[in-house]
Amino acid sequence: MKRSDRLVSLTRYFLEHPKEHMSLPYFSDKYDAAKSSISEDLSIVDRVMQKEGIGYLQTLPGASGGVSFIPEFSRERSHQFIDELCHTLEDSSRILPGGYLYMSDILGDPKMVNQIGHVLASTFSNLDIDVVMTVATKGIPLAYATAAVLNVPVVIVRRDPKVTEGSSVSINYVSGSSRKIQTMVLPKRSLTDNANVCIIDDFMKAGGTINGMVSLLDEFNAKVQAIGVLAEADDEEDERVVENYTSLVKITHVDIKEKTIEVRHGNVT
Amino acid sequence: MKRSDRLVSLTRYFLEHPKEHMSLPYFSDKYDAAKSSISEDLSIVDRVMQKEGIGYLQTLPGASGGVSFIPEFSRERSHQFIDELCHTLEDSSRILPGGYLYMSDILGDPKMVNQIGHVLASTFSNLDIDVVMTVATKGIPLAYATAAVLNVPVVIVRRDPKVTEGSSVSINYVSGSSRKIQTMVLPKRSLTDNANVCIIDDFMKAGGTINGMVSLLDEFNAKVQAIGVLAEADDEEDERVVENYTSLVKITHVDIKEKTIEVRHGNVT
Repeated sequence: MKRSDRLVSLTRYFLEHPKEHMSLPYFSDKYDAAKSSISEDLSIVDRVMQKEGIGYLQTLPGASGGVSFIPEFSRERSHQFIDELCHTLEDSSRILPGGYLYMSDILGDPKMVNQIGHVLASTFSNLDIDVVMTVATKGIPLAYATAAVLNVPVVIVRRDPKVTEGSSVSINYVSGSSRKIQTMVLPKRSLTDNANVCIIDDFMKAGGTINGMVSLLDEFNAKVQAIGVLAEADDEEDERVVENYTSLVKITHVDIKEKTIEVRHGNVT
Repeated sequence: MKRSDRLVSLTRYFLEHPKEHMSLPYFSDKYDAAKSSISEDLSIVDRVMQKEGIGYLQTLPGASGGVSFIPEFSRERSHQFIDELCHTLEDSSRILPGGYLYMSDILGDPKMVNQIGHVLASTFSNLDIDVVMTVATKGIPLAYATAAVLNVPVVIVRRDPKVTEGSSVSINYVSGSSRKIQTMVLPKRSLTDNANVCIIDDFMKAGGTINGMVSLLDEFNAKVQAIGVLAEADDEEDERVVENYTSLVKITHVDIKEKTIEVRHGNVT
């Protein structure tokens, strides 16, 4: 195969297999090309990916000569995306009764969701994560987008058990903002012991729901490695029960009378 | 920019912007290259994509000279994937009480979900679809995977309304297998009038839930263009209430005593 064809094929391969370790001989065989040619191909792919701020190829030296694509957004690219997100969210027609914000259009756009997942996953790129966890319903697309980049599976916590998932573990927790007691269920089969978990959700107010997931993970002897949310509410009245988390945006002020919304960058660096 | 670099950048661009119409001058400007060079680049990308069975570049002739990437899996590629899926599903440890099948591991694997979405979207590639619709919870990842390929948004029908979504339309429907009356809710804001809709779900038994979504869409004057499910149960006792649909696999027999499962290709062509 010619270099030009290999570059197209390799680029697709890496984008579809993030964080997977591949040996040089594998590509050498696949494309029927010398290892030195493959090495040159890889440096071209790496250079373009870095220039576009979407990640880089990590090469391991030695006889096996492995390589894997690390899909890490550059800080510049992440910040630019969050800027746009803040701008989109500050549209006053998003204000719903009770001071809630309509975000379903953003969460319903696969391209936006994909970008959010990339930004979150980039933040957790150096952590050892086995699985992404979320609670039904709105966090699900964000969890999948993040997990796709981290190349790990997703488990979904539910409010009610389903017959099609086998036996499960359930806990009760106190919802932070409404102070109601709620239930959370996770099928036993969905998590192995001592798993390293990344919790993802769309929105965090006091953090009761996320805290519930943390408690549920205790039951599985799992370790919470990271917590990521799209938006957090900057609400002084509620005391936050979650400490270490990453948020893309912070909704600092919603004025129902004046119909204004203020959205800032979250604590993502 | 050199051809080698352009090929990496173009491949990524097309994969991330499926079904988007782009003009040749756009790329010509972006890469500071002659239109003739870009044309050659495009034919290389097209050739490799076709060879790998993942889609093709559709070029429109004329002064504007547009191009878009159509991510259509080849029949061979789709069939190979469904073969693997059948094999994975025939594992007897998947049998749950009541003859249900454990599929959460497949639905929790972003790479599997992505492939399922590609196969479904490839089937609907020629249809005019504005939005993908599903019902919470398990169909959600499949709906996003399909919508990402079709480059359209997702709307999620819920069993209960949420304050954060504004006013909504609800209907009652009869669940096909349990014959229970259930409720479905869709926020008013989530669908425009006369939308062309593709319904996606993970599993179809009698089809009551999907039929409920069809009824709900009537309320929005929407048109159902396609229905796609991962798996259908071949259950003679229940009369199917949905007619035109596409399924990837058909679970033809689950024997709880003998612990055997039979899974065949669905009606996807």
